[in-house]
Amino acid sequence: MNIGTYLDNVRATTPLVHNITNYVTVHDVANILLACGGSPIMTDEPDDVEDITSICGGLNINIGTLNKRSIEAMFIAGRKAASLGHAMLLDPVGAGASRLRTETAKRLIADFRFTTIRGNISEILALASGGSSTRGVDASLADAVTEANLQAKADFAKAFAAETDAVIAITGAIDLVADATRCYAVRNGTPRMASITGSGCQLSGMMTAFLVANRESPLGAALAAVCAMGLAGEIAESRMQPGDGNSTYSDRIIDAISLMDGATLERGAKYELL
Amino acid sequence: MNIGTYLDNVRATTPLVHNITNYVTVHDVANILLACGGSPIMTDEPDDVEDITSICGGLNINIGTLNKRSIEAMFIAGRKAASLGHAMLLDPVGAGASRLRTETAKRLIADFRFTTIRGNISEILALASGGSSTRGVDASLADAVTEANLQAKADFAKAFAAETDAVIAITGAIDLVADATRCYAVRNGTPRMASITGSGCQLSGMMTAFLVANRESPLGAALAAVCAMGLAGEIAESRMQPGDGNSTYSDRIIDAISLMDGATLERGAKYELL
Amino acid sequence: MNIGTYLDNVRATTPLVHNITNYVTVHDVANILLACGGSPIMTDEPDDVEDITSICGGLNINIGTLNKRSIEAMFIAGRKAASLGHAMLLDPVGAGASRLRTETAKRLIADFRFTTIRGNISEILALASGGSSTRGVDASLADAVTEANLQAKADFAKAFAAETDAVIAITGAIDLVADATRCYAVRNGTPRMASITGSGCQLSGMMTAFLVANRESPLGAALAAVCAMGLAGEIAESRMQPGDGNSTYSDRIIDAISLMDGATLERGAKYELL
Repeated sequence: MNIGTYLDNVRATTPLVHNITNYVTVHDVANILLACGGSPIMTDEPDDVEDITSICGGLNINIGTLNKRSIEAMFIAGRKAASLGHAMLLDPVGAGASRLRTETAKRLIADFRFTTIRGNISEILALASGGSSTRGVDASLADAVTEANLQAKADFAKAFAAETDAVIAITGAIDLVADATRCYAVRNGTPRMASITGSGCQLSGMMTAFLVANRESPLGAALAAVCAMGLAGEIAESRMQPGDGNSTYSDRIIDAISLMDGATLERGAKYELL
Repeated sequence: MNIGTYLDNVRATTPLVHNITNYVTVHDVANILLACGGSPIMTDEPDDVEDITSICGGLNINIGTLNKRSIEAMFIAGRKAASLGHAMLLDPVGAGASRLRTETAKRLIADFRFTTIRGNISEILALASGGSSTRGVDASLADAVTEANLQAKADFAKAFAAETDAVIAITGAIDLVADATRCYAVRNGTPRMASITGSGCQLSGMMTAFLVANRESPLGAALAAVCAMGLAGEIAESRMQPGDGNSTYSDRIIDAISLMDGATLERGAKYELL
Repeated sequence: MNIGTYLDNVRATTPLVHNITNYVTVHDVANILLACGGSPIMTDEPDDVEDITSICGGLNINIGTLNKRSIEAMFIAGRKAASLGHAMLLDPVGAGASRLRTETAKRLIADFRFTTIRGNISEILALASGGSSTRGVDASLADAVTEANLQAKADFAKAFAAETDAVIAITGAIDLVADATRCYAVRNGTPRMASITGSGCQLSGMMTAFLVANRESPLGAALAAVCAMGLAGEIAESRMQPGDGNSTYSDRIIDAISLMDGATLERGAKYELL
């Protein structure tokens, strides 16, 4: 399928996405979901999540500022979403940086078959191996996916996809999107995306909408979302004027998603099957 | 009274507004309150809300990401605000979408006489009738206020105003602002306002400041706030450049409010008594 | 030391800062930390804060939307950070406006030696004297630091610095930065900074990164951060175009920080030893 079609399908169906996410980047997650053609709803109250998940098509669980209440809500919402066959995404923010984050992410993966797990390389390593050099919420340089280790990292991604039965999206300077048998590398994006908060969280929210609108092909949907986010970063970069800095850049990413159509995404997507 | 005067009264008195609101749009609520000339303060801790409400002039209760703690805080703050005769606004975000939201909003309405209740048509229907087709936090198309059903919806708004003894503000493509005997239709705004998160929450925060600064005329104050928000959306739209998208649009709405004076509001307000 | 060097040291070392902060301005705090060259991480779950604080170099405690859970987290994180010798900053948002805020801030100061305490004059007065005219989260006009009372306020700041063994940063139209023996006045900034939410919270986050990167000279680090924030406000002001308002201004402050280097800060900083 044409990569742009995945986006067109989002705009055609307005998928409703339930987000249990952190309070740092939640506003951006809501806005990028609207910008790509989805519809966001947020709740992390255990007594509220079953009803809200029930009216949605997808569940985006992001552990960025997890707490006991929201963890309880993640499991309740997860059980309901799983029972309804919803698209489910896990963003294990900071896995490897604290026991609570690592263990919560592992318990979630043990209890639910996520459609997609999206994180940076250090977070994904922490979940796969139990040991990692995570530096807070940013990936460790030592872990980074590079041209030199691309095939080894792709093999890792496919193995973790096989283990979890999920599409694995590992984002960084080079992004990897894999299922058990295939791994794509994506070379969209710009270095400046690492200098603003929330581009990963935004991608997870948007990706959930892509998964809902393209239930038959989660690998393609995840790949298309990764390309769309990176392309938006490139478009934003191309519009920077003298004096513009991080905050303007951040706004322009959401601007670019709101203006992107399938044809633009198809032309701009830079991916290859490894 | 001139519609613009309601805004001038806000800027002249800097009303302090206590907001118990959701963490998705809270930043925008704070900024629009400052932009219109008010002063925001947020707290949802039961042990903190009495003191904070006491130093304010108005209380804005928004149930967008309610939880057990914040619900408790809503009732404690509500009792204190009611005892002090403060302006009180309820924004029943997602009423109709979950039992907890619908029941919490109904309990709040049962316990307190709100100065104003502001929501989309599906949320207000859920509170009036107990049954609705709410689709998440967005209004259902089937419920929408249109030119064809305008008088019937106005009658509904007046009846709910009579039932609750509150001014009812129902916002959408056409907005309705009613008390028990009069209903205004407002035709400010642009369709793009539905594509960003938080324009409703922002309006509720700003409206509370208008209610505090114009205690003698809540119907006029709510009407003026609705006109101001819609006019800001039009001004923002008029400033969009090629390449600008949702995030720039969102910023420009707050920009427009921060620059708006009473004379501009008076000239731009588009309302009629039905 | 050259004032600009403090900023250069942040960019050279990417200090990781743990923030327990309010959900109103948390997104701006994360972004300004990234913009100045630091790296933010947020968590307020008692079971998560020890691990997260352990991998950081500094702890920024902001009581803006404190609750029982986050208060518990503040003390747990504080004990761990203190035991590790981390830079610790307290931003007592709304101290004086509620008993819970005043008492929590006082308990934190009693339990921990903060590297720096940063607030507006009303908040700092509330902590020093137990009585204040705090108006919500904004400083009372009656308390304001002016040219007429500058020396008296400087003496107060030095006395409170001696009492707490912390650097005291009091921000407003004129900022004061003091230790027990020296007090600087800073005259950077513009009045418009008071019309947006979060410039104080942003400064506290950024200042913590300056403190981590310049452990040997907290007074200079706090002074440099205050100058940087005010200078960013001036740069943002200079870029305002017709039709630009509060939200654009807010974005341009973070833009300016992201583009600022030590030489620019050194040239633009306006401070004097009183």
